[in-house]
Amino acid sequence: MMTDKMDNDMTEYKVDFFLSAAECNAQQEISLPLLAQRLIDISTAHASAIGVGYEHLLKDNNAWVLSRLSIELTRFPSINKPYSLVTWVEDLNRHYSERIVELRDDLGEAIGYGRLTWVAINIVSRRPADLTPLLHKVTPSNRRCPIERHPRLGSIGIPDHVTMYKFQYSDIDFNRHVNSTRYIQFILDRWGVSHYDLNRVSRFDISYHAEAHFEDVVEVRCKGDEETQDVEIARDGVVCTRARIKFCPRSLPIIPVKN
Amino acid sequence: MMTDKMDNDMTEYKVDFFLSAAECNAQQEISLPLLAQRLIDISTAHASAIGVGYEHLLKDNNAWVLSRLSIELTRFPSINKPYSLVTWVEDLNRHYSERIVELRDDLGEAIGYGRLTWVAINIVSRRPADLTPLLHKVTPSNRRCPIERHPRLGSIGIPDHVTMYKFQYSDIDFNRHVNSTRYIQFILDRWGVSHYDLNRVSRFDISYHAEAHFEDVVEVRCKGDEETQDVEIARDGVVCTRARIKFCPRSLPIIPVKN
Repeated sequence: MMTDKMDNDMTEYKVDFFLSAAECNAQQEISLPLLAQRLIDISTAHASAIGVGYEHLLKDNNAWVLSRLSIELTRFPSINKPYSLVTWVEDLNRHYSERIVELRDDLGEAIGYGRLTWVAINIVSRRPADLTPLLHKVTPSNRRCPIERHPRLGSIGIPDHVTMYKFQYSDIDFNRHVNSTRYIQFILDRWGVSHYDLNRVSRFDISYHAEAHFEDVVEVRCKGDEETQDVEIARDGVVCTRARIKFCPRSLPIIPVKN
Repeated sequence: MMTDKMDNDMTEYKVDFFLSAAECNAQQEISLPLLAQRLIDISTAHASAIGVGYEHLLKDNNAWVLSRLSIELTRFPSINKPYSLVTWVEDLNRHYSERIVELRDDLGEAIGYGRLTWVAINIVSRRPADLTPLLHKVTPSNRRCPIERHPRLGSIGIPDHVTMYKFQYSDIDFNRHVNSTRYIQFILDRWGVSHYDLNRVSRFDISYHAEAHFEDVVEVRCKGDEETQDVEIARDGVVCTRARIKFCPRSLPIIPVKN
């Protein structure tokens, strides 16, 4: 993360980044898993800054869990350029917080939004936590987010494509679960490089239902067409994650340079 | 990347980072692939700042290619803490540059080093480039790096473990090759989470020989014991990468908290 700047009232929180070459995908844009990670990171950082971070919840044996994430962009940040994220809380109650992240390009223009639903759970009982004592610390912003709310992602029924995967050491994150962004990689890998040269992700929705762990074997079940694909990732019949990915044709297809 | 600070003479170049939770492995430390990426990034940034970056070499159809990388650490940066990297050129001639990166913890203490050999090639002929016109721009530092030079990694002979892998979309980087840090993941995944709770990587050496591309199928061939493992990654009999990983027991084994 780079420089942190904040409003005086801390309602909004901004972080500036620089997209290095090593962080880019084959289309020389930010990869979707990295963007998702950045949205998670800035949520965490803002929550900590206003006194409702992991460390504050942990005092009552509570923790934030990412429940749903949606990303919609008109353009992706591109290689060797700065970009910024600005986050605020749109809505909250004693069980969850709905957070928005605005993505800005190197000129400060908004080029997309992320919408994240964070649920608080008690880590002992695994039941929903009661955030009432913390609610006064959070000032939701009046700014609205122009992208649609999370869709309800139901069962996909009979998939038309299934792959298996066994989670390895490098898939596991700091809290011993499968890293939330790894699921996004599986979904992206359903297509080849040339599909991404002609099309870009226009919208991505994911919901997290159950954690997966080291050495779990999952089925990645997909259904849809080249434009919209629904995905279900399940272990032993338990759905860990549901997602929907939508593509639109690029106005300027990418012609790879032979290197 | 965070704030950049430099010496006036630009012989050394420093970048400050903050290790977010999402960037950590199961041991709540920086993951080795991410650390390798940071070493590549800071090399690139310093080279650009002194006028010998990719963009400068490209004017003569030349490019930097990472040939060898060694990392040796007494401690890894840990979760939610700042850390810094400082880089300088130790040695250079008209064909290659030997670069050092010092890793510092949140108190500014040196906790490890990276050593990177960058070779310049002509991207048209694929032959070594002649960097003579640029040499005057680079001032090697008098500071020495305390870790040993790259070992010569030869053929491993008959492996005692082989796995196959087919490269997917998310393995491909901005220049359409397999991302250099992906190979490191395969090597780490040879062991399970509990091995890393008891042991840490003490030294890692990797040499890059041939590029792999989208949909290439590689063999990951390993030989060694729990302490030292030699690895060869090859496609159709062509070795892409050779590596050696060494572990030492942790002075304080990590006892995972049930979450």
